[in-house]
Order: sequence, then C-alpha cells, then structure tokens
Amino acid sequence: MPSVDPAWLPPGAFRALGTRRTLIRGSGPLVETVHGEVAEACARFGGRVVRDSEPGAAAYDLVLDVRDSDGLGDEGFTYAREGGRATVTASAPAGLLYGLLHVVRLGEDAFRGERRARETHRPAVALRMVDHWDNVAVHPVMGQVERGYAGGSLFWADGRARGDLARVRAYGRLLAACGINAVAVNNVNVHETEARLLTDRIGEVADIAGALRPYGVRTHLSVTFAAPMVLGGLPTADPLDASVRAWWAEATARVYEAIDDFGGFVVKADSEGQPGPFAYGRSHADGADMLAAALEPYGGTVHWRAFVYDHRQDWRDRTTDRARAAYDHFTPLDGEFAANAVLQVKHGPLDFQVREPVSPLIGAMPGTRLAVEVQATQEYTGQQRHVCWLGPMWSEVLRFRPDGETEVGALARGGLVAVSNVGDDLFWTGHPLAQANLYTFGRLAWQPDADPGIALDEWIRLTFVPEETPDPVRLRDGLHAVLDGSWRTYEKYTAPLGVGFMVQPGHHYGPSVDGYEYSPWGTYHFADRDGIGVDRSAATGTGYAAQYAKPWSEVYESPGTCPDELLLFFHHVSYDHVLHSGKTVIQHIYDTHFEGVAEVEEAREVWASLADLVDPARHARGAERYEEQLRSAREWRDQVNSYFFRKSGVPDAHGRRIY
Amino acid sequence: MPSVDPAWLPPGAFRALGTRRTLIRGSGPLVETVHGEVAEACARFGGRVVRDSEPGAAAYDLVLDVRDSDGLGDEGFTYAREGGRATVTASAPAGLLYGLLHVVRLGEDAFRGERRARETHRPAVALRMVDHWDNVAVHPVMGQVERGYAGGSLFWADGRARGDLARVRAYGRLLAACGINAVAVNNVNVHETEARLLTDRIGEVADIAGALRPYGVRTHLSVTFAAPMVLGGLPTADPLDASVRAWWAEATARVYEAIDDFGGFVVKADSEGQPGPFAYGRSHADGADMLAAALEPYGGTVHWRAFVYDHRQDWRDRTTDRARAAYDHFTPLDGEFAANAVLQVKHGPLDFQVREPVSPLIGAMPGTRLAVEVQATQEYTGQQRHVCWLGPMWSEVLRFRPDGETEVGALARGGLVAVSNVGDDLFWTGHPLAQANLYTFGRLAWQPDADPGIALDEWIRLTFVPEETPDPVRLRDGLHAVLDGSWRTYEKYTAPLGVGFMVQPGHHYGPSVDGYEYSPWGTYHFADRDGIGVDRSAATGTGYAAQYAKPWSEVYESPGTCPDELLLFFHHVSYDHVLHSGKTVIQHIYDTHFEGVAEVEEAREVWASLADLVDPARHARGAERYEEQLRSAREWRDQVNSYFFRKSGVPDAHGRRIY
Repeated sequence: MPSVDPAWLPPGAFRALGTRRTLIRGSGPLVETVHGEVAEACARFGGRVVRDSEPGAAAYDLVLDVRDSDGLGDEGFTYAREGGRATVTASAPAGLLYGLLHVVRLGEDAFRGERRARETHRPAVALRMVDHWDNVAVHPVMGQVERGYAGGSLFWADGRARGDLARVRAYGRLLAACGINAVAVNNVNVHETEARLLTDRIGEVADIAGALRPYGVRTHLSVTFAAPMVLGGLPTADPLDASVRAWWAEATARVYEAIDDFGGFVVKADSEGQPGPFAYGRSHADGADMLAAALEPYGGTVHWRAFVYDHRQDWRDRTTDRARAAYDHFTPLDGEFAANAVLQVKHGPLDFQVREPVSPLIGAMPGTRLAVEVQATQEYTGQQRHVCWLGPMWSEVLRFRPDGETEVGALARGGLVAVSNVGDDLFWTGHPLAQANLYTFGRLAWQPDADPGIALDEWIRLTFVPEETPDPVRLRDGLHAVLDGSWRTYEKYTAPLGVGFMVQPGHHYGPSVDGYEYSPWGTYHFADRDGIGVDRSAATGTGYAAQYAKPWSEVYESPGTCPDELLLFFHHVSYDHVLHSGKTVIQHIYDTHFEGVAEVEEAREVWASLADLVDPARHARGAERYEEQLRSAREWRDQVNSYFFRKSGVPDAHGRRIY
Repeated sequence: MPSVDPAWLPPGAFRALGTRRTLIRGSGPLVETVHGEVAEACARFGGRVVRDSEPGAAAYDLVLDVRDSDGLGDEGFTYAREGGRATVTASAPAGLLYGLLHVVRLGEDAFRGERRARETHRPAVALRMVDHWDNVAVHPVMGQVERGYAGGSLFWADGRARGDLARVRAYGRLLAACGINAVAVNNVNVHETEARLLTDRIGEVADIAGALRPYGVRTHLSVTFAAPMVLGGLPTADPLDASVRAWWAEATARVYEAIDDFGGFVVKADSEGQPGPFAYGRSHADGADMLAAALEPYGGTVHWRAFVYDHRQDWRDRTTDRARAAYDHFTPLDGEFAANAVLQVKHGPLDFQVREPVSPLIGAMPGTRLAVEVQATQEYTGQQRHVCWLGPMWSEVLRFRPDGETEVGALARGGLVAVSNVGDDLFWTGHPLAQANLYTFGRLAWQPDADPGIALDEWIRLTFVPEETPDPVRLRDGLHAVLDGSWRTYEKYTAPLGVGFMVQPGHHYGPSVDGYEYSPWGTYHFADRDGIGVDRSAATGTGYAAQYAKPWSEVYESPGTCPDELLLFFHHVSYDHVLHSGKTVIQHIYDTHFEGVAEVEEAREVWASLADLVDPARHARGAERYEEQLRSAREWRDQVNSYFFRKSGVPDAHGRRIY
C-alpha cells in the first residue's frame, strides 16, 4: 500500500523548525507532543532541541515556554521575535502546541527579521469541532460514512474500532495543525450497532480518544435519544421521567470512567425519523437539559441539533415552509437551555446548499449557546469529485451580521462545527484539493473573521511546499487559480440564484431540476412557464423573511432589495425579471451555466499545467477528478438550460446551443 | 405460519369432480399425477376413482383416457359428453392432465346436459413459459427477485435451492392449471453465484426440475454468455472459437445428464451491460447458434433475448431512438438463426410500459422462430400494490396483425413468455388480485386469440368459488368491476397517450415526469411549454414508424391517423392538438387523470363491499393495497397535472384543482 498523503504536514513544512535550535519549557502530555514534533523535525533537518533543564535561552533560535500568562486561556499563546530569537509563550500545554504549529506555518518567516510587537493568538471560539457521520456497521443505503466521499471510516472497520489507530493519531495531528479541538466519532443518525458505543462498547471510543488526545482533541459521541429504551430496557425515554434521568446519569458516569476528558454528546432528535422528546409531549429544551444534567458533573456538553422539520410534507401545500422550521421550533425555547447545552444550528435554513441565506435562528436566541454547523463534506457541492473550496461561503456566513451588528462568528458561543469530509482514502478527502476545506474550516473556527484566502494560502504553502519546487510562483498562482473562485464556479453551473436542491434525489450528485419538486422533503422551486422561485416574503409568501431582524427582514422582503444571489430563495419572479446585474433571470441562468463550464475547462487546464510541480499520485488523482467534474458540469449546464428553455421558451441572447 | 393461499386451485374448485365416479386409463408419471388429483378430490368429496384395470366405462361419470388419437399432439385432448358421461381423450399423459384441468374449470358444467360435438383442445403455442428473474444470492440493489413484488424467490433461499420443494411442486400444479409448461428458474441478468448453476450447481436445478416435472413443466436456465471464461477459465467466449463451442457442448451434456428433459437456455447478451458476441465482432445469430448447436442433440432450445439497445445514450441526441434498436439489430439476421434458436422479443419496442405499440420486429423475421415476451410482474404497472389486470393489453398485442393479416399470437412460433410475478409471498403475487395476471397469461398462451375476459371469469370462479358464498352474483360482478377495466384505469392516471416512462428512476414506482428525461436510457417525452411527444415518423422524425409493414407504417406516420392512445409515442404535438376523441391533448391529460383516480376510489369501495364474501386474510391484503393504490394514484394525478399545467399554462376546462 502506498503511504498515506501527508496533507498539510509534509516533512518539508518542518524544514525551518528542524534546522533550528529549540528550547522547550513545560511539562505534561501535550508538551511531550510538542517535544516529539520538534525532535522529529530536528532529526530530519539537523537542528537541536533541548528541554528546560538547561539554563539560558540565549543560545536558542526558538523558545517554547509554558508559564502563567494573563488572558491566554488554555489554548492561546504569544509569539514574539526579538534579538534574533523567536519565543512562544503559553499558559497551558495546549497553547504551546498551537504556538508550535504557528511557527511551523510561518516557516522561515518565523525566524526572519524582528517583529515589533508581541503577537497574541487566542481562539475566538472555544469549541472547534468536526462531526463524523461514520457508521460502525456499514449501512445498506448510506454506506459506512453517511454523505462520505472519501472511502470508509477512519475510526471504524470490520464492525469495530480499528485495531491500528496510527492513522487516527495522524488525523488528530492534522486537526491540531488547523486548530480543531473536538471530534464526534459517529453518525448523528445513530443506528442499532452504534447505539451501543455509549455503553458496553465505550472502550472502543476510549481507544479512539486515546489516539486523538496527544493533539489536544477531545472526543464526543452521537447518542440516540431512545437509549434508555434501546439499551436500558426502560419503557420510556421521557426526559422528565426520573428513571430515565437516572439511567442517563449512570451511563454518563460510566463514560467518564472510560474517558475522563470526554467532550459530550451530540444528539439529532425528532429529526428525519430519529426519536426525540416530542413523543412524550416534552420540549427540545427538556430533552437537551436532561442530557446536560447528566454531563454537568464532569464538564461535558450536549450538542443538540436544531435540524427539526417536517420531512413528510405535502408538496401541494404551499403554506408550510421548511425554511421556517428551526426558528419556529426553537426560538420559543430561548432561555430554557442549560449552560452546558449547546443548540447546534446549520448555517442555512435548509440543508447545506451551495447558496442559502444565513439561518434566522442565529442571533434570535440570545439566552442560548448556539453552535453553527457547516458541511465540509461536499454533499451538495460536488462530492469531492468537483473542486469547490468553501472558504468564501463559510466566511460570508461567519461575517454576516444578523442584527446588523454582531457577526455570526461571535454569536456562535457554543462552537463551530463542520461535518467531516475525511475518510480512509489515501488523500484523506477523495479529491486532494478538498483537504483545503477542512484546513480552512479549522482556521476560520479559530478566527471567524479571518480572511479565508490567507488560510488557503497557508494550506497551499504547507501542503505543496512550493519553495521546494522549481517554480514556486507558478505553483502557488496555479493552485489559487483553481481554488479561489471554485465555489462561485460551482454555484454558476448548478442551481441558480439561491433556488437550491436541483439534485438527483437520494444521493444528491448531479442535476435533476425536478428531482425534489414533487417530493415530501419541502424543497421546491415552483418553476412554471412564466417564472420560478419561492415567495417567502411576509406580504404575500410564507413569512419566512420576517423571521430576520432588521435590516434583513426588510432587505429580503422585496425583490427590489433582495441580493441577486438569493432572489429565488425569497421570491417567485418571472423569467424576464431584471436582476441588479442588469440581466434577466433567464439570461442569467443561461450565462452562468455557460460561464461555469468554461471556468471548469480552464481550471482543468491549469491543473494539467502543474503536473511538473505536484506529486505525481496527487496530480493524477486531481486530473482524474477534473475529467468527471467537467463531464458533470456540462451535464448540469445542459440539463438546467434545457429545462428552463423548454419551460420559458426564451432563446439565449447569444444563440448558444441549448438542447 | 398461515397456510399458503391456494390461488386458483382451492379445494372447492374440485367439488364437482370429487363427487363423481371417474375412470382413468393410461400410464406414466403424468397419469399418476392425474390419478392423484382425482383421488384427492374424491377423498374430500366422496366420489370414486378407478384405474383402467376394471372393465366397462358405463358405470362412470367421467372417463379420462390416454390412447392414440390423431392430431392432438402431446398436450391436446378432446372433451365430450354423451349418455350422461363425460369423456376426456388424449394422445399423451400431458394432454390428459390438461383435459382433467379443463374438467375442473368446467365444474358442474362438465357433468351437466349433453354437448353436441366433441370439443378438441390443443395449445396454439407449443412453448408457454414463465421466466423468473430470481437471484440465488440476494442482489444488493435489485434484491432477491429482480423486479419482484411478491417476497423472495420460490426456488432459492439462503443462497441455494430450497430444501423443501413442496411449494415449488404446488407452483407447478398452478402453472399446469392455467396451461404453462416451462419455467426459467433464474434471472436473465446472471451474476456470479448464479452462473455456477450451469455447472457445479446443476444438481440444485435438477431438484427444482424434479418438483415441477409431475405437472408437465420443463425447466430452463438463464446462462451467461461469458460462461466459458467465467466458469471454464477459457481466454475467450467467442462463439466461433472451437474451444468455446466444445466447452458449451460438454457443459450442455452434463446438464442433460442431470435433467434429461431440460428445456434449454435463456440468454440476455449485449444488453444493459451483459456480455455478448459483439465483443468478438460476431453477430447475435453466431451467439445463439453456438448454443443451439450444443442443445440440439438433446432437443433443447436457446431463448435469445432481443432486448439489445444503447443504454448509455446521450439525451441531447435526438437522432438515436431506442425504439428502433431491436429491429435494427435483428432483422438483418433473419434466416441465420438455427431451428432450435428462438429470438425472444418484448412485446413493445421499449420496456413493458402501460401502453406501447407492438414491436415492429414481430412479423419482420419470417425466417426466424420468435417468442413474444410479456411482463406479468408489474414493474411499470403498479408493482402489485395497484390492481392492474393485464389481460386486455396482452390480448390487444396478441391479436394485433403486424402485416394486416396474421396475428401476433400466430407469429410467436417460438413461444409466449411472461416474466413471472410470483414469489414466496403468502398470496404468491403480493396483491391477491395479481394472481389473475399469471392465470390469464397462461390461458392466452394456450389460445392467444381467446377472449381474456373469459380467462378472468374462469380465474374468478376457480379462485373465489362464488357458489360457495351467500351471494355468487355480487361476488363475481364485484370482482369483474374491480379487474375488468383496471389496466385502462392505471393507464389513465399514469403516463398519457403512449408517452411512457414518467416513473421514478431505478425502482420505477410512482411518478416522476422528468425522471428519465435527461438520463442515458433513451426514454424521453420532450415536453416543453408548447407540446410533448416523440416524433418517430419517417418524414420528420426518427423513422421508427417506417419499421412497420403496411398498413401500420402509414397509420402511425401521421398524427391524423395514429390512434390516440399511441399519439405521443409517435408524434410531438402541441398541447392544443385535437385528438380523435375531440379533446385537446392537455384536456385529455387532465380528464384522464381525474377519471383514473375516481375509478380507483370506486374500485376500492367495491372491494370493501365484498368483505363478507372473500376470505378475510385475502380481503385484508387487498384492502390494504387499495389504500396505497389510491394514495399513489392521487400522487400520479397531481404530479402529472401540475407538471403539464405549469408547463402549458392551460387551465383545466372544468376548473378542478391542479397544484
């Protein structure tokens, strides 16, 4: 078997560090990790590392120092460069680890010139998490990893936790290197086998936790709300029932016996068929708070997902609006959730489409800790066969100001969560360029108002080590060229103007304009011969626009002020409606679809031109995926254009081929 | 476990026979079967049966006699009634069995009054076959029975032939009682496990053959064209290669050692991914003739399916027409097929839609033995959750005169074949009323120009034994009411005017108007805002209409002469095109969809009203399925009507609700 792709931690990324003399001060397991990293780099590149026993820092290029420092918290650190020496200081070992990785990211720059001010780095968000939708037992329809496009599970194989956890440890290292500190190791749809991880199989979870712990990553577990019945044999799972509460308290105590730094539970309840408190006439706050109470003595957290909607809607019924569901369900409960209960909200009101408005629930529950969930796994964005770097989309979400003032990134007090895009694939993520999504997520979770382009540039420099190639500039420029605009390219050739969901039902890959139009899933476009879009205005539509605070409730209410890219999400307009761009809706559809394919053709050429600068296996994988992306993009273009030409009868202004 | 439904051979069906005195003359295994049947009936109802040793027929009500008789063949018989005695005469034991079953069907009428003339009954078609698309190993997508809607396989369970073959024997008895004399026991898509039935697992096939043989049913086997490679380890499956031919000869010899009356092979080659002669630059006649040569010494037959088309078509390409494929592939080979090679042709040019024209291949190959294949399993006709009695459709096909003279039934010199609708379900066919399809197929295969309504009436009388109920007339009338028109009802609420394929992709249940519109399967409707349909005329379309002989090439060529029910199969017309019925196409769509649902509502009520006259379990099963049929029919109505209303913009003339 070929060795696993090193992703953003190839040996070359450690060259600057490995050639220097480093002093490490501090103790504890994570300091050992730091020492191990430095020692390995030095062994490779000829530098030297020394522990705190030796006196005097003067002889070192880099000092990594754990000592009491105000305001850094467990994970913060300072970085300074004075007198030819770089110094990283942290209050706690985790901070030291992040500081070391900062030095790695800086490369030679870490040791070059003077930096006037001491820089302080702290994560803006305490919990930076990836959720794995991994099944232990391969699901007959969903496979092992639900919505996974990168092979099997990293954690589970042959029906149990992997015996060899070396790769899980390597994964923890990659996560730390982009700033992620928590992992949920199993699917939120908890099936029969996986339910038992909570109880008699907790030892397997503990093994995984042990492999992730050296990199400051805590382990969380998805559990079924019905566990007291399914596992405990109780006649009810009513969250207010004393025996149920006692069962959870006891089960949780056993979990912490096995994993003393266990992070907590993730729960998908009353959602797409999963059990939940509604069955007992209880609220979701009742449900979450019961689990919060069980976790509270140990410092654990329950992540309670807000993805609650009617998935058996009647498409004939235009008054029900799935987009409203989370807000309608949860805002009445604001203030009722315990301090260690986090309400985990998808960033948009529907389901990870290439373009959605920010969920109006975010910002509407000031008395509740919210986590915002994004999807690194590219369920609706090309399934890691298409290049679609999601940094710009996530950044738009995180910098959105629901009330016109505070950004989403700051409102996400309960954390930022990504559904993982990683599996046991050689390149971790199927398409090697999809690694950039995980990396960028981690960096944005650490600092939500950061420029995602900087994270991408870091990822490129770490992963491809351009300075080791004959043409660093061409390589960096080329990678930026294929990645920077790839999300907007994907948007262009798929569903237009925020309308979403024109995908093949079930697996969600490839176009089917009417695929969900007459389904029970609540995801419609209502295209007819005259126009398209969903009227979600307060005046004449479902009223969804009114769920927003000002100014957004006003901006979205009228087609005249609604941003073009969300027009069809909020309004039903005729094909000849003129956008702010000056184009009609129908011409916009045609133009973007032709443009999107042209952009893929161009990106494929750019990638091809990098063959001499990229590892051959990695390049070949990317090249093969570009063929599929181009085929698929053309299919999207032709199906979408044909569909709307057949419906509208409006010819393309430029006379291009529509079938 | 409740006992299996007796279908059309309940004890009550044997009452008339079982109360009489019967004399049987003849010998051989099938005569033993006849004797066993009569003896069992007599044991139940008090009659008497005597073998030929006793002298004098005068004392008997019924004489069943095997003796040399001209022109009856192996399966024919005469029936006469004179002097208060009924006499069945056959030349061979199989004929005697069919004669006995004729007496059973007649019931008391068999023994009542005089019949002026001796009736002669002979099957018009020698081979009357059901093909089971059963897998031995459950297929991950298709399940155990491909396109099966009646549970698992009757033949195979737990990865091998069932140990207890009592039910297979019962199945053979039911087949004989409707006139079927051949069964193919495995799927035409031959997967890895099933390939081995030909060689090291032939013993299992022999066991099944042994259970069917007592009812005059011969066993056939689907084989893979690649068998010499897959099983024999040869480097090729080229049909002209001497080692390949030798391999087949040897394999076939072994088959006949195990099953001396083996019927032959069924082959799906170069079809939907199955291997075939094209890979070696050989023709389908080369392929079929090679297998025919192997079977010839033993009297076996190869059934070579004509379902060859490009299933990876580009929907953008309007010049390729899947409907043309079978004719284009096979007519050039007419005269090249061996005498014991049968070309098995689906009745329509596409794939068992609720309405298709008769395949132009039928009648176009005078030098080739053709078998016509119909589909009893209701893949596209409600999947045995909907009542859809297919007798009238099959009868239309069989009575169609491709050249204006000879009927299809007479052209099917190679046999009539139905894809089986039977599984290990309690009621054999899922919906108890779906049994009528198998029964009717058998009776039409025996006599293709028969009135299917008579077969249905036989089925009702045998299955429900109305005279044993308090209200025979209400029961018979009720069953006719729900069955007689059910095919046209199904057509009304599904795809209109012969356009076909508006189904959910993959499983084919329920509506999806655009489900196959942008797919590679070659099944399109080309609906746009102005009109719908496929132009298959010679003048302006794909030229398919010209594949027919006169008069049909002329009839189908013009929308003015094309029958309404096939209009959209042959022509693309505007929504306001006026049909022969006087309605516009769009109003026809609306009207038929509302009517179809109303008819299902009515049928459900009729079925409900029969609760006191039908076995409770059977009635409950039907009632439960009617709920689903009605739900589904409404879904069809609303999706199809909404789709075309949105596209055409034409309101319903009667102002009914369209969404």
